[in-house]
Amino acid sequence: MPVLLQVDFKTEGPFGREMSEAYTDLAQSITGEPGFLWKIWTESEENREAGGIYLFETKQHAEDYLAMHTARLQSFGITGIRGRIFDVNGPLTEMTSGPVG
Amino acid sequence: MPVLLQVDFKTEGPFGREMSEAYTDLAQSITGEPGFLWKIWTESEENREAGGIYLFETKQHAEDYLAMHTARLQSFGITGIRGRIFDVNGPLTEMTSGPVG
Repeated sequence: MPVLLQVDFKTEGPFGREMSEAYTDLAQSITGEPGFLWKIWTESEENREAGGIYLFETKQHAEDYLAMHTARLQSFGITGIRGRIFDVNGPLTEMTSGPVG
Repeated sequence: MPVLLQVDFKTEGPFGREMSEAYTDLAQSITGEPGFLWKIWTESEENREAGGIYLFETKQHAEDYLAMHTARLQSFGITGIRGRIFDVNGPLTEMTSGPVG
């Protein structure tokens, strides 16, 4: 069963279309990270927050990515980064159509 | 574009197979909630945390569910529930194969 990485932080943007344009190269590079399966990019202009939900092949892959990505976000001037790594409960997730297969 | 709800909290369990068995009825009921699309059930026995990543059709659906679910978790004796509602950045999520389509 793959492992889920949940990241969020406070930010003053960019959001929406500007965010899409600013991070196109970053998105391309993320797809090549070891053990990477997918990422949903999250944002809330209203709450001045953004982040991501990731699926990785193993916990070690998620831990290595989180350490690297936290340092990268800090280099952008972002602080207060919250990262959590979770196992996925397979039977319950299957019952609620969670896309981890 | 659907809306993502991210929930997590501290818990002493159940985890793993016991969690699957304890929440089977709850999982069935969640699939019938208004605007519900999917849920990934998250858990970390190591960190004594659990939660869920949900996709809903609209922000209103996510807000209504979060209010109901927070009250339900509190009725189980759970405190310190953290819920965040995010928009999904569509173009970036598509680039990184995020399963929101």
